[in-house]
Amino acid sequence: LSLTISICNQWYFFSWIPFSGSVSMKSLSCDNDYSSHMTCKWKEHKEAHDLLRITLYQNDGIQNENKMPCVRDPERALPETSDPYIFWVCRKNIEYFGIGINHIYSFKHNKTLETQLNVNLFQNVQPLPPQNLEVQESSGDFFLTWTAAEGSQWLGNALEYEVTYKRDWESWEKDALRLLSNTTRCHLSHLMMGSRYVARVRARVQQAKGFSGTFSEWSTDVSWETPEGQEPIQPRNLRCLFNGVNLTCSWEVKKVITTSVIFGLFFRATPASAEEECSPVYEKVLPHIPYVVQSCAIPVSNISSQSRYHVSVRTKTEEKLIEAHKNIKVLPPTNVSVKATEDHEYELRWKKHTFQYNFIKQKYQVQYWKHNQYNETLQTLNISNDEPPFIFTLQMLSPSTKYRGKMRAMVNSADYQSSWSEWSEEFSWETAN
Amino acid sequence: LSLTISICNQWYFFSWIPFSGSVSMKSLSCDNDYSSHMTCKWKEHKEAHDLLRITLYQNDGIQNENKMPCVRDPERALPETSDPYIFWVCRKNIEYFGIGINHIYSFKHNKTLETQLNVNLFQNVQPLPPQNLEVQESSGDFFLTWTAAEGSQWLGNALEYEVTYKRDWESWEKDALRLLSNTTRCHLSHLMMGSRYVARVRARVQQAKGFSGTFSEWSTDVSWETPEGQEPIQPRNLRCLFNGVNLTCSWEVKKVITTSVIFGLFFRATPASAEEECSPVYEKVLPHIPYVVQSCAIPVSNISSQSRYHVSVRTKTEEKLIEAHKNIKVLPPTNVSVKATEDHEYELRWKKHTFQYNFIKQKYQVQYWKHNQYNETLQTLNISNDEPPFIFTLQMLSPSTKYRGKMRAMVNSADYQSSWSEWSEEFSWETAN
Repeated sequence: LSLTISICNQWYFFSWIPFSGSVSMKSLSCDNDYSSHMTCKWKEHKEAHDLLRITLYQNDGIQNENKMPCVRDPERALPETSDPYIFWVCRKNIEYFGIGINHIYSFKHNKTLETQLNVNLFQNVQPLPPQNLEVQESSGDFFLTWTAAEGSQWLGNALEYEVTYKRDWESWEKDALRLLSNTTRCHLSHLMMGSRYVARVRARVQQAKGFSGTFSEWSTDVSWETPEGQEPIQPRNLRCLFNGVNLTCSWEVKKVITTSVIFGLFFRATPASAEEECSPVYEKVLPHIPYVVQSCAIPVSNISSQSRYHVSVRTKTEEKLIEAHKNIKVLPPTNVSVKATEDHEYELRWKKHTFQYNFIKQKYQVQYWKHNQYNETLQTLNISNDEPPFIFTLQMLSPSTKYRGKMRAMVNSADYQSSWSEWSEEFSWETAN
Repeated sequence: LSLTISICNQWYFFSWIPFSGSVSMKSLSCDNDYSSHMTCKWKEHKEAHDLLRITLYQNDGIQNENKMPCVRDPERALPETSDPYIFWVCRKNIEYFGIGINHIYSFKHNKTLETQLNVNLFQNVQPLPPQNLEVQESSGDFFLTWTAAEGSQWLGNALEYEVTYKRDWESWEKDALRLLSNTTRCHLSHLMMGSRYVARVRARVQQAKGFSGTFSEWSTDVSWETPEGQEPIQPRNLRCLFNGVNLTCSWEVKKVITTSVIFGLFFRATPASAEEECSPVYEKVLPHIPYVVQSCAIPVSNISSQSRYHVSVRTKTEEKLIEAHKNIKVLPPTNVSVKATEDHEYELRWKKHTFQYNFIKQKYQVQYWKHNQYNETLQTLNISNDEPPFIFTLQMLSPSTKYRGKMRAMVNSADYQSSWSEWSEEFSWETAN
């Protein structure tokens, strides 16, 4: 069960382009002094030169065709160059120049390169792909119809068709259903409900009718959707395959259903065996497809032709253990107030949240600030005493100042855990001068 | 003949991942005040809620399982939200808290979701893919051998194999050769010389031996190269297919050969017909492959079961017409000199290149500069007089100065064309004070 990647065949990414002539002829250029001689230059691929010799000929339309005397261009004959071409220069004396006298150049080569074939048209037929694919529903059954390509009349009724179809997210090679048809209509069987399907058709000539050849290209795809079934939330398409080691079962479930419940695969190796559960379950999630595929591999230790496994996919109960003493939510302290003492200090008092057990202690955090100067004067205090009071010393406060504050609590006993409570209501006090 | 692109099936790009539990259970969190009550929160997909109702249960290990009373979370019950989830909050009074008391939560749902299957192992076999593919050559023939996957002994000799092979740049679907084999060895026929091939094998159980099932996955590919043939430069693999409109022929040629010569497709519709040439020829060039595929479509107007085309691929002559009077290369002027005249002017004289005909005139370009001050003092003159002399007027030169210059020529008559000649040799003169 691992990632499979289909490498695209690169061949298809290259297109047919018009052939534009040989490199040697494209490279040929000739000039002349319009007096006594002319010079031609051209290049030849070194590997081609080793396989085939080509020779430049000139025809001036007056005399016969003449071979041009060519030598390697001394200006470009660098033996160490990585250029794959040989550069030739050809110089020839010319008696007459004139506007009517045109020179036609061509290459001749020293070997006959040829291959031949006799083709019987009716034995080498590749029809054009079928057209006008349509899917029609009739009382819950789906039928595909199509027509032979225009211009196939000469074949009479000698065409037969291969129809193949699959759900849109499946693989043509592995998952598609195939059938052969002599007519241009077929019944699409074994469809699953609530799925988008694609179908395509190709044609070939029937040998029995005196033809032979290859399949046409595939037609363009036609796509349709089957209606939702009556029980779309049931797991479906349960299939199992045995590879000699494992019996691997896969099934499909509606994607949203797996947000609420989970499915397990249960099996009995024999009717008398205890039911066991397969683990781990893997899943494949596909974007835009409302189903997920789940899969599990049952190890098979005892192989016998009598082996008949009973497998069942059904919901199983997920359980979550939550320990109450580690998920405590402390309520914030109440009745929080600050009052001056006889010693001219300030005393913070509060009423703490009470637990079922007094031995569970709390710690606190206090934030206080000068009135209307929250950002500039904010102070934070940590108090590890479970019970009030807490005394503000003289250094902690300025005289003649209005203060505001808030307080929160957290469990402070081993074995018990909480997060910070919400903050208490804000409280305020004023210091003397 | 157009660009074909194979869209990769996206399905293969998604992998199997372990299933990690339902969203609802993952979202469940519960806290308590460790005094009198507890609160749970969880979420449920709206679409799942429409299909299936799930209910949260709590089990404290003392009492029986209890349904938690849940309501939509008033803080997150925004009716206009696009969030696909419903948020639930469940509050329950608790009599006793304690470290030994753990709460186990689970969801129950209101429908039975189940599917079942009886599986006969021997009727649902997908063997493991064959292994150890090897290609051996023996007196020019190639043989492929392989072994059944380890752990296939239980199948005895019930496996049969599908072997498929193709040249590395061809398509598995369209071009590969296929054969079935009952043994783990087969002869690779119809190989072309000088090509890299790939082969792969898959296995399935034979129905005749009491099994059934599906093909294994394909084995890993094995690759080999056939030796160069004796005539690697001949065109090869000429094939023609008739689609009712055209007889389309394709063939292969060694890529470097097409740098020197070009191939044409010639055909006769009947033995008595004149030979015709097919046009245009298209080609498909593939990187790293030493062959190009060329192709041409012969229109067929008269379809008859007697039609036997004779087609021949062979080199054809490329011709290039080069008009001498439009490709003149003028030789540069010679004997160029500047001399003072009796009128204290300076006179440029030269000997022009002579053509076969005097009526072909030339024009010239002169560059001159003060000695050792090329960049700062360069001047360019155009002279349209075919014949010397050219007079430098007093304004064009400074007194008591050493000058250097060079000159080039071009044809200047209608109907005749040249490019500029090379520059003449440099000349020099000195002006009086």
